[in-house]
Amino acid sequence: MRAMVITRFGGPDVFERRDTERPTAGPGEVLVRVVASGTNPVDAKIRQAGAWANIPFPAVLGYDVSGVIEALGPGVTGFDVGDAVFYTPEIFGNPNGSYAEYTVASAAIVARKPDNLSHIEAAGIPLAGGTAWEAIVRRLAVRPGETVLIHGGAGGVGSFAIQFAKAAGARVIATASTANHAALQELGADVAVDYRDPDAAERITRETAGRGVDAAFDTAGGNVPLSTQVTRPFGRIATILAPTGDLSALYTKNQTLFGTFLTREGARLREMAPLFERGQAKVIVDSILPLEEVAKAHERLDSGHGRGKVILRVGE
Amino acid sequence: MRAMVITRFGGPDVFERRDTERPTAGPGEVLVRVVASGTNPVDAKIRQAGAWANIPFPAVLGYDVSGVIEALGPGVTGFDVGDAVFYTPEIFGNPNGSYAEYTVASAAIVARKPDNLSHIEAAGIPLAGGTAWEAIVRRLAVRPGETVLIHGGAGGVGSFAIQFAKAAGARVIATASTANHAALQELGADVAVDYRDPDAAERITRETAGRGVDAAFDTAGGNVPLSTQVTRPFGRIATILAPTGDLSALYTKNQTLFGTFLTREGARLREMAPLFERGQAKVIVDSILPLEEVAKAHERLDSGHGRGKVILRVGE
Repeated sequence: MRAMVITRFGGPDVFERRDTERPTAGPGEVLVRVVASGTNPVDAKIRQAGAWANIPFPAVLGYDVSGVIEALGPGVTGFDVGDAVFYTPEIFGNPNGSYAEYTVASAAIVARKPDNLSHIEAAGIPLAGGTAWEAIVRRLAVRPGETVLIHGGAGGVGSFAIQFAKAAGARVIATASTANHAALQELGADVAVDYRDPDAAERITRETAGRGVDAAFDTAGGNVPLSTQVTRPFGRIATILAPTGDLSALYTKNQTLFGTFLTREGARLREMAPLFERGQAKVIVDSILPLEEVAKAHERLDSGHGRGKVILRVGE
Repeated sequence: MRAMVITRFGGPDVFERRDTERPTAGPGEVLVRVVASGTNPVDAKIRQAGAWANIPFPAVLGYDVSGVIEALGPGVTGFDVGDAVFYTPEIFGNPNGSYAEYTVASAAIVARKPDNLSHIEAAGIPLAGGTAWEAIVRRLAVRPGETVLIHGGAGGVGSFAIQFAKAAGARVIATASTANHAALQELGADVAVDYRDPDAAERITRETAGRGVDAAFDTAGGNVPLSTQVTRPFGRIATILAPTGDLSALYTKNQTLFGTFLTREGARLREMAPLFERGQAKVIVDSILPLEEVAKAHERLDSGHGRGKVILRVGE
């Protein structure tokens, strides 16, 4: 099968097109023909220096799939050959990512693709959308009428977080560079704040009439101290990176901090699907490239300036 | 009235016996004749350098009361003159603490003393017990069958935390210096670990068969990083001090961190009372001193080696 593999860590030029053996579905697994593969910042981190992920070389990276089930391994129930599915492959120790014509996964982490989404769109959801869902819906448990602060609202996770918080009935304050404020508003943010504004904390506090936001979500890293300042007593904060800096206000204000790191499960994808089916959330696609141009996608990831998902078209 | 006041910050010798004006109960307040006053580490922190607490001089410190209602302010319902009550006075900006014959408080933070407890015992509960209750019962929400790690189990908050976690049906691993391990076991701890043991993390992990504890409570400060290591994925951690150090595992393990700082409310005291009434929790009294010997109590607090509460007898 066609695959873009790496045999060492480095720049976007480390990808090589190879014809590799098609993987086979073991017990409890499904073999999926990849139609589209999403790309995420974590892909670039692993490509650069991913020894921590314990992936044996040659490695196929890629952690977002939309495709069609080609074969069922022993003991798989609930899926049929030909089902359109989407999911995010495991990272740790997994050399069979989504930058290839076929990939295998435990059936437990796979879900049916919403019918109204193309494979290109669906491939943009599982990793970033799942992370945002875990934080906004499961951990922060955002409720109607609350005000939620989302740091890095124009990024992959932040874009979904804004939409999920709005769907939950919250008012959303989102941060991004001023150049991305129109994008924040398109996603549904009620207030856009430039994270480089030295008065950002004051601005956010003023937007809540001094009360503080009910919940904050740091998708960018380094914003937990600011979040403790602008979140109300007994408020909640979620982060997808290690919290650093002065966290004193976390205890003086009786706040709760949720560390969030995506675990793989089909159930979460099934929870999220209705929002996409009803049009309450959508995928922002930045560009579509053929699988063989994965290096270009990684140049875009390395720049940190993506505004939406870069999707690889792998099959039809 | 008799009161032990301070007019400057400093050592235990800053206390002066004075005859001061008895406070009066304003709207929504009760005037309480103090029978016993508890002492807590925060009293010593304020006495040493408590500018942060915004208490005007001359100040009566003391944040644990058991006594009898002497008068009701306008609008107070639900209490009668003569009711035996216990509570923890506000700290911030309050110059009318419990090191005096009388003190006033909002009726909202006061509760009836459990009948089976003496005033001496009841005065040892509100601040430390309330803090442990907030962490173990309300925030960590410890459930039967769970394993809970309590750092500083021999201290004021830790002693209650062990008992509350046991009452909730948990298995308790507690840390203290080896000299205090018998005390931990008397309180109900199933496993006692010396916090200075370099293999403490390994020992705790082994006690959970490698699974990690379900919840951890840092009453001593500085133990959140160790807690993230020995707590299972999706486990909970509470701290009553600012979290410091490497908190990476908080997000990679999807853990929740509860910052905890006691707010004053009568409702929490009423929640806690049944455990004391049924004998499922008790107060460890280290010693009883007359009000005038508050300096001795503070010497004991300063030593950091108290094993139970030092209670001041103020009246009869």
